[in-house]
Amino acid sequence: MSKTVGVIGGGQLARMMIPAAINLGLTIRVLAQNDGEPAALAVTSFGSHLNVDDVLAFGKTVDVVTFDHEHVPQAVLRELVARGVNVQPGPDALQYAQNKIAMRRRLAELGIPVPDWAEVTSTAELAAFLADHGGQGVLKTATGGYDGKGVRVVRDAAEAADWLDAGEALLVEELVDFRRELAQLVARRPSGEIALWPVVESVQRDGVCAEVIAPAPGSAGRLADVAADIATTVAESLGVTGVLAVELFETTDDRLLVNELAMRPHNTGHWTIDGATTSQFEQHLRAVLDLPLGATGCRDEWSMMVNVLGGPTTGTIDDRLAAALADQPTVKFHFYDKAPRPGRKVGHVTAGGDDLDDVAYRARAASAFFDN
Amino acid sequence: MSKTVGVIGGGQLARMMIPAAINLGLTIRVLAQNDGEPAALAVTSFGSHLNVDDVLAFGKTVDVVTFDHEHVPQAVLRELVARGVNVQPGPDALQYAQNKIAMRRRLAELGIPVPDWAEVTSTAELAAFLADHGGQGVLKTATGGYDGKGVRVVRDAAEAADWLDAGEALLVEELVDFRRELAQLVARRPSGEIALWPVVESVQRDGVCAEVIAPAPGSAGRLADVAADIATTVAESLGVTGVLAVELFETTDDRLLVNELAMRPHNTGHWTIDGATTSQFEQHLRAVLDLPLGATGCRDEWSMMVNVLGGPTTGTIDDRLAAALADQPTVKFHFYDKAPRPGRKVGHVTAGGDDLDDVAYRARAASAFFDN
Repeated sequence: MSKTVGVIGGGQLARMMIPAAINLGLTIRVLAQNDGEPAALAVTSFGSHLNVDDVLAFGKTVDVVTFDHEHVPQAVLRELVARGVNVQPGPDALQYAQNKIAMRRRLAELGIPVPDWAEVTSTAELAAFLADHGGQGVLKTATGGYDGKGVRVVRDAAEAADWLDAGEALLVEELVDFRRELAQLVARRPSGEIALWPVVESVQRDGVCAEVIAPAPGSAGRLADVAADIATTVAESLGVTGVLAVELFETTDDRLLVNELAMRPHNTGHWTIDGATTSQFEQHLRAVLDLPLGATGCRDEWSMMVNVLGGPTTGTIDDRLAAALADQPTVKFHFYDKAPRPGRKVGHVTAGGDDLDDVAYRARAASAFFDN
Repeated sequence: MSKTVGVIGGGQLARMMIPAAINLGLTIRVLAQNDGEPAALAVTSFGSHLNVDDVLAFGKTVDVVTFDHEHVPQAVLRELVARGVNVQPGPDALQYAQNKIAMRRRLAELGIPVPDWAEVTSTAELAAFLADHGGQGVLKTATGGYDGKGVRVVRDAAEAADWLDAGEALLVEELVDFRRELAQLVARRPSGEIALWPVVESVQRDGVCAEVIAPAPGSAGRLADVAADIATTVAESLGVTGVLAVELFETTDDRLLVNELAMRPHNTGHWTIDGATTSQFEQHLRAVLDLPLGATGCRDEWSMMVNVLGGPTTGTIDDRLAAALADQPTVKFHFYDKAPRPGRKVGHVTAGGDDLDDVAYRARAASAFFDN
């Protein structure tokens, strides 16, 4: 009776879609590789997202296929579509989230502001780019990078010989002189409706999102308008459906440049579970099912999300839970049922209120119970 | 690693505990009688709540046993406790939610204001009570009633011959001259901590909760204090753990009388999912695990919950969903994956905001999409 959403991948993003599906009365099914992944409660099939037969068999049991991650190969996606499976976002959009060189090329064609960039396949090409950009640059693998992986700063082309020797074209970008990082999340339905949350500030540590402030301080007006315009143009031009996260640099000379794209719920949108009228997870389900989108206003003047990174080095999250709940009764806690491991995203907390200093204090205090 | 909550019964209350468990990183298991019940996603065991072996086998797999309903017999509950299963709320408390005569007797002993009442086993006893109370009364079966079932107004003792002939003692109460019905929800941990949400107004239709306004209009001050005192006394005196709902009459002469008790999340608390910092479902899980309780403040000046009762008489809920979502983008929708049937609770909606008229309009408009 109710519509069924199928999610490929059993990580925390799939996990956080489950409450949204329950509330809306939808059925949710997850294709996971292993037992015990964060979204285990909704796992109905085991298989590999790299195996077309596994994915196709799963796709036939649901009304729409969507994703916990962006690692399903184009060949698999295109076979699904050819066999009549409803895939949202589709392969034409996803290619730009899967390949950073394709993304840079397409955004440049659209006139969207991006850092200076080049595709390089040799030390000579890389050296030429570095020479033109103050002797430094950010080198990225075109595919497979996330959370600081597949990214390195280079100041000498010879440093990158190991990556270049692998034979794949690499993306090199100018090292942007930025004031802070922002993220603009947007949701889009196949039939065209778009909804945007306020632009947020994202604080990264060691290449991983550590904190998010919503809305980004001082963003009302021009900054919010420019971020919204960029995200809307990207979503519409690339035909994105579901949630799109546009990670942005706010440069020291007041420009916004697109850093990365993600075509799924994103860490910079976790605050919406507790801080927005419609969470990114509910909105993603509505969008991929082509249902009308929900309101995206903030529930508090300020929301702050702090990731629980790594988790306890002794004992378990559960051992720390009672003390954290007692200390911060207004904070909302979210754990992903993942074993602690250095740097791993094992949960997050969100606080909200009128006073940003107080909100930040409560969120950081709550998260700190699970450190070390 | 994470604590496991076991819920007996697979209805919508168990269903709505699932998102709370996911967020807190808890594991939730449900014992249900049949496949396809609202909490199906978390069902790990099938069996009857009346069968001590089924319940005991289930209880051994979890850290605490709690309930979707109050129909587990005392003998089963006491056997669980004797076998070392952690049951919250325990049988000593639950007996007062299971037997209305025991409840009335205990509340009267505690000096808590209740309607005039008597236990009756014969037409003569009933006739005597009616004669003393203006020739009318409310007759209730001691056990098994809910949502208007097991309750009837009588104006002649002979009308009740069918129920009296069944041989069970009945409860008769004065027909209270009330202005409106209120509900005070409270959560209590085994170790004693208590947290109360604001008292709410509950609008009943045909003996079933139709709408809830939070907080109850005009309740700030004396009314809120008295309701909180009553609920706190009941929770502490009866040793309730988890969520306790105290349904109250506000009489035309400004008294509060206890109508019914429920020892579980309750329809009058569904607004807390979207309208309070901590929902009744999250709080219930925290309380039964003896974890510190969360803040219970309102997220909006006014919240209004409207039940979706019965559901569409033609087609499905899903057929109406797109139009409802499009019309009311700020309303939060909740469906229980139950087939429509006249009078059945198949879902609810909640709206929030500063202007009660507007909040009520939006909630009622959203719910109305699923009528007839």
